[in-house]
Amino acid sequence: MYERIQKSFDQQGLMKTLGAQLTEVEKGRVKIICGFSEGLTQQHGFFHAGVTSSIADSACGYAALTMMPENTEVLSVEFKINLLKPAHTNQLIAIGKVLQAGKKLTICEGYVYDSSEEKLIAKMTATMISVPQ
Amino acid sequence: MYERIQKSFDQQGLMKTLGAQLTEVEKGRVKIICGFSEGLTQQHGFFHAGVTSSIADSACGYAALTMMPENTEVLSVEFKINLLKPAHTNQLIAIGKVLQAGKKLTICEGYVYDSSEEKLIAKMTATMISVPQ
Amino acid sequence: MYERIQKSFDQQGLMKTLGAQLTEVEKGRVKIICGFSEGLTQQHGFFHAGVTSSIADSACGYAALTMMPENTEVLSVEFKINLLKPAHTNQLIAIGKVLQAGKKLTICEGYVYDSSEEKLIAKMTATMISVPQ
Amino acid sequence: MYERIQKSFDQQGLMKTLGAQLTEVEKGRVKIICGFSEGLTQQHGFFHAGVTSSIADSACGYAALTMMPENTEVLSVEFKINLLKPAHTNQLIAIGKVLQAGKKLTICEGYVYDSSEEKLIAKMTATMISVPQ
Repeated sequence: MYERIQKSFDQQGLMKTLGAQLTEVEKGRVKIICGFSEGLTQQHGFFHAGVTSSIADSACGYAALTMMPENTEVLSVEFKINLLKPAHTNQLIAIGKVLQAGKKLTICEGYVYDSSEEKLIAKMTATMISVPQ
Repeated sequence: MYERIQKSFDQQGLMKTLGAQLTEVEKGRVKIICGFSEGLTQQHGFFHAGVTSSIADSACGYAALTMMPENTEVLSVEFKINLLKPAHTNQLIAIGKVLQAGKKLTICEGYVYDSSEEKLIAKMTATMISVPQ
Repeated sequence: MYERIQKSFDQQGLMKTLGAQLTEVEKGRVKIICGFSEGLTQQHGFFHAGVTSSIADSACGYAALTMMPENTEVLSVEFKINLLKPAHTNQLIAIGKVLQAGKKLTICEGYVYDSSEEKLIAKMTATMISVPQ
Repeated sequence: MYERIQKSFDQQGLMKTLGAQLTEVEKGRVKIICGFSEGLTQQHGFFHAGVTSSIADSACGYAALTMMPENTEVLSVEFKINLLKPAHTNQLIAIGKVLQAGKKLTICEGYVYDSSEEKLIAKMTATMISVPQ
């Protein structure tokens, strides 16, 4: 399962561009981390909401994929994210968790923490769909 | 107004990293474009939903900022995005429009098109807040 | 098409309880109206956000159903609603419009106006799914 | 605190119409229950998503209000709800919890369960705003 997710993750050019890394994969739960750099900022010098969203979306998508049959892939249908605190940290930690896995649709929750993994910076809810490979 | 927005945009390191450009600024409406590159992809080689979201979020935020007093800045409270079609195009065009401007909160809609500006790839609704500079 | 929608609408006990009426049905667009009564209020005496949401959700669902094959039904997967203005009016007018119709999923936008149909009170985006009857 | 919330709840005509009851109020957490009746259904005879949303919205709003100063009231800015399972039960149990309380905005999560309080039927994320009374 880890290999399957890692292989797909490695094909996401954006994750490389952001410097994001896949660090944990379990059934229904995936963790992605992303270190700070000046190329990831919004106008105040903190992580841009787009980075927070990108890694949360990938974490949710891959969490969903861990519950899907072998010969399928995952696409994001939609997500909503609340940006709770300024992303003022040297590392973002995104955790995607499956809330409900269905035949076609899987609903996930994404949590983005600061480097201590204690301060919740953003909360996502995402709808993912499985498609034949 | 254009200068104010352009100056803030130029401070967003992420926009530079994505290769995004601010191309239009009017009262209540902002356009951002982003050309395709391999560093912006998801696992199928199309634009990652994170790129689509990032430029739509910036377009919505700056559309909101055009309606806010001079000595304020804008932060994203939350957004929801529906990814309608695979982002299979050589350029994304994001347009942010103010739906309702309030004293504290401004609600915006974001549209992300393909390079023809005719195929709607994603639709965002975003809540923005003005904060003292 | 009108009959199919009206028949389903009449089976929604909630619409009767709210006093809501189906007034227009076209391909991809449905209108539902709801007159004010004290049984529909929040704590300030205006329409409760739950009423606004209920009729917008039904309008979106039925707009989606107009695009679906005969032997299917529609269920709401998720929706997001922004409550833009206090719902201080003697009638709510909800319009559901299809933004994109797919084989399984249909994405709709819902608009809720005051009785003049000019003041936008709420804006919804909804994801609907077709299921076999 | 309980009295303050109960008093406001009693002013919500919609809660009476739905037959909903406020059953628990703690700092940052509120529970509302709603028994089944034919006047609350969608076309398949289950609870309408509008009922699920209405009681989740009220539970989130009042959870937020427990964290706000005495001379303020609460309004819903926006919410998103995922309808995870058909609401086929004889009672809905909605729990609103504060995720983050701020000076102006409070972000809440709403959970709607079936009568066993074990099957999660819907999940909401809501943004609430405090306004002077």
